[in-house]
Parts: sequence; C-alpha cells; structure tokens
Amino acid sequence: MNEPNATSGRLYGVGLGPGDPGLVTVKAAKIISSVPVVAYFAKKGAKGRASVILDRYIASQAVQMALCYPLTTETHFCNPAYAQEMRAFYKEAEQAISDHLTAGRDVAFVCEGDPLFYGSFMHLHIRLKDRFEIEIVPGISGISGCWSAARLPMAWGDDVLSVIPGTLPQEALIRKLRAADAAVIIKIGANLAKIRAAIAEAGRLQDAIYVAHGTSEAQIILPLADKPDDGAPYFSSVLIPGQGRRP
Amino acid sequence: MNEPNATSGRLYGVGLGPGDPGLVTVKAAKIISSVPVVAYFAKKGAKGRASVILDRYIASQAVQMALCYPLTTETHFCNPAYAQEMRAFYKEAEQAISDHLTAGRDVAFVCEGDPLFYGSFMHLHIRLKDRFEIEIVPGISGISGCWSAARLPMAWGDDVLSVIPGTLPQEALIRKLRAADAAVIIKIGANLAKIRAAIAEAGRLQDAIYVAHGTSEAQIILPLADKPDDGAPYFSSVLIPGQGRRP
Repeated sequence: MNEPNATSGRLYGVGLGPGDPGLVTVKAAKIISSVPVVAYFAKKGAKGRASVILDRYIASQAVQMALCYPLTTETHFCNPAYAQEMRAFYKEAEQAISDHLTAGRDVAFVCEGDPLFYGSFMHLHIRLKDRFEIEIVPGISGISGCWSAARLPMAWGDDVLSVIPGTLPQEALIRKLRAADAAVIIKIGANLAKIRAAIAEAGRLQDAIYVAHGTSEAQIILPLADKPDDGAPYFSSVLIPGQGRRP
Repeated sequence: MNEPNATSGRLYGVGLGPGDPGLVTVKAAKIISSVPVVAYFAKKGAKGRASVILDRYIASQAVQMALCYPLTTETHFCNPAYAQEMRAFYKEAEQAISDHLTAGRDVAFVCEGDPLFYGSFMHLHIRLKDRFEIEIVPGISGISGCWSAARLPMAWGDDVLSVIPGTLPQEALIRKLRAADAAVIIKIGANLAKIRAAIAEAGRLQDAIYVAHGTSEAQIILPLADKPDDGAPYFSSVLIPGQGRRP
C-alpha cells in the first residue's frame, strides 16, 4: 500500500453472514453501529437481504448508501456491454466511497457472506486498496450457513472439498465433481437442470442436498433427487458431503 | 432423528471462529453465556486457543468440561492403535455429554473454526444426532480468517476453489492443485516441505501466501517463497488466490 493520508477515513469490508442476523460477528456489529457511513450493493428497487440484517445493528444517525446495480446478476459476463456497464458502475461506486474516505469519514461496506470469497466487495477492494487503509472483517459464508442449517458434516480427514460455480459448462462440472471428495455447487439459478445432470453423470446424485436461503426464515432443505422442479434462486447451493476417514 | 425425549437438554455445536474473540457470532456469544455446560476438546496440559476465546463470553457459574485428547494430531491415522484409541476417546466424550443432556441440561460444544468443516465436533455429531436435538451454530472458518487477515481476494467469478489437506501424498497434491483455480492448503505442520515442492511443481509458487495464526495477535503472513524454513503449526494454511474474471 502507498502511504494513506493520515486524515483519511478507514474502509471496513464487513461480511454479514448467511442470512440469520444472529450470525453477524460481534466485531462486525460493533463496527456497523459506530461508523458514520454504511454502504452496500443492491438491486434497484429491491430491499436486499443485507439491509434486513443491517437494520438490527446500524446507528440511527448513520448515512446509508445503497449502490444499485445497473443489471441483474444472470446476464452473461461475456457480453461486452455487460462488462462495460459493470466497469462504469464500479467506478462510480469507488468514487462515492472514496469521497467519504477522503473527507475523513470511516465507511463500512457490508455484504452478505464473506467479503473475499466470491464477493462483489473484491471489485472495490482492488480499486481502493492502494490509496486507503482497508480492514477486512470476515463473515460466515453462505455455503457454511447452508451446511449448518442442513446439519451436514461436509469434509472429514483427508477429503478435498471443492467449491464449484454452477455457471461452468456441464462437461467441466462433471470433471470437477469427479476430482472432488466433497463439493459445494454455488451460483445455481437457471443452471439447476445442467447441474443436476452433471451430478448424476458423476455418480453423486444420491448424496446431493439442495439448500436455499439457509439460516433464514425462508430456508428450504431437501435431497436434490426429491426436488420436483428446476427453479432455484441464484444464491442457493447444492451440497455433496465427503465420506472421509472417521474412527 | 428419532423422537428426542422432551425433557432432554439440547446440544449446540458452536463455532468460535478463527482466533480473534471479536469474530465470534452474536448468536454463539449468547448461547455460550447462557448454557449451564460448555464442553470442548483440548490437548492434555495445554490451554487451547478455544478457551482463550471462551473466557470472554462464558458465564461464571457454567460447568466447563475439557475433553482431553489421548494423542497429538500428527500421529498417522493408519496406525490401528491410534484409531482404536480415538474411538475409545470419542465414546467417552459421547457419554460425558449425553449424561448432561439426559439430565435435562443444555450443552454448548465449542470448537475453533466452523463445526462441520473438518471439525472434530463431527465425530460427536454422528454419535449423538439420533438421540438428541442438535443445533449447529456456524463459525468463521480458519481459512476465511487467514485470507481476511492477508486481505487476499480468494475466488472470483467462475473460479473453482479447492480446499486440499496437506497430509495427502505429493503426487495427489500436484494433481489437485492443477485442477483448481484457487486453492487453500490446510493441515500444514510437518508437511510443509512436501507442500512447497508440490506447489512449485504445479507452477503456483509465486502466488502462494503462507498464513499462521490468522486474526490472532501471533499472526504471521508472508509469501511462501520468502519463508526461509519449513517449520509451521498444523493449523496454518497456504493460500493460492484465483485469477477469475473481473470487469
């Protein structure tokens, strides 16, 4: 990092955990309730799950800054218009946050899950890390929320556990599933039919558990083989536990 | 689950997070401070890191039950005497906890990290889950603590992230590393020289970051290539971040 200006505010990248407001850490709750500015990414017009968690901890006088995505998450990344629009969006977000930091105000940027694990906070982090002091406050990941809600021991002993995006092509999914002892498939959404076929082809369908909204009140947990349809939220997951050694 | 007896206590499997006592969740802190019995696995004669975290939250009148391992963690699992001794140990632990539960006392079994992610709590969970009500309270995993302390964005977009035990043979390590975009190697200890050679062979040495005691006061973070020796605690980790898409 270059020398940050001593009068600049500090940026906190704060994970809010998987959904249950009780699964916020003590440290995150303390930071959220004490900073003058709390920022987050949101879908236009939607009150995100993050803001539901936030309501329990935020100070009444804090500035809330919702930075609204221009597009939905399932537009394909390879579309050049999408990439260009996202770059412009992150540039605006960077500017909005850096204005507060430069003025000496600490900012907590909050996100569901864990900030540095497939988190969109990372796009701000790489743009701001050389100019400002950044502290990361990890959160319980969405996948940990899912296996905890399902009470499913995920990985034992020498198991290799792979986290596999369901956005990959079917052949890649099969290959990655075959190479793993335990697997968590993330980014489900419109990919569920393909994911289900890949898991069956890899011979793991009987072990696969589908979890949506893990740890929140809307939670759904069932064997993937028993799920009658292929509708699923983007942030649901499919868990395939390991069978490693156990005395 | 069979019908648990209505007068039995409830077992909580509680993750304490990676080391920093502030990284305990609000829910975990509340449970630990309100149950009559708090149990944990410990090394004989050593005050584990879990008990340091615990001291901040536990109620003064709670019973603390340290269940002491008969052996160190690095004895090889394939040794039949080891497996037999561990089975006897888990059976005793099961009995000690089930005595409290049967008497109607809630028990919080606490562990560092996340209970169902390579956690020794899982050995109790499979022995008690059909007789008692169990609730899992996830914790920040040790690996999340490490990448957060290192401020290292770990996985982006379509990256596959694999968690790979350093106890695997060198050839398996190389194969698993080549199949992953992002990797976290766990269970380091006496395996570091082998792990380092495998990472070099897989062409990822320049990306690898070594982290020990992440988020605690004793934390050490440095590029693996700059680490002059092969001494490392068992619960340290080596992080190889993904390079996935970013607009």
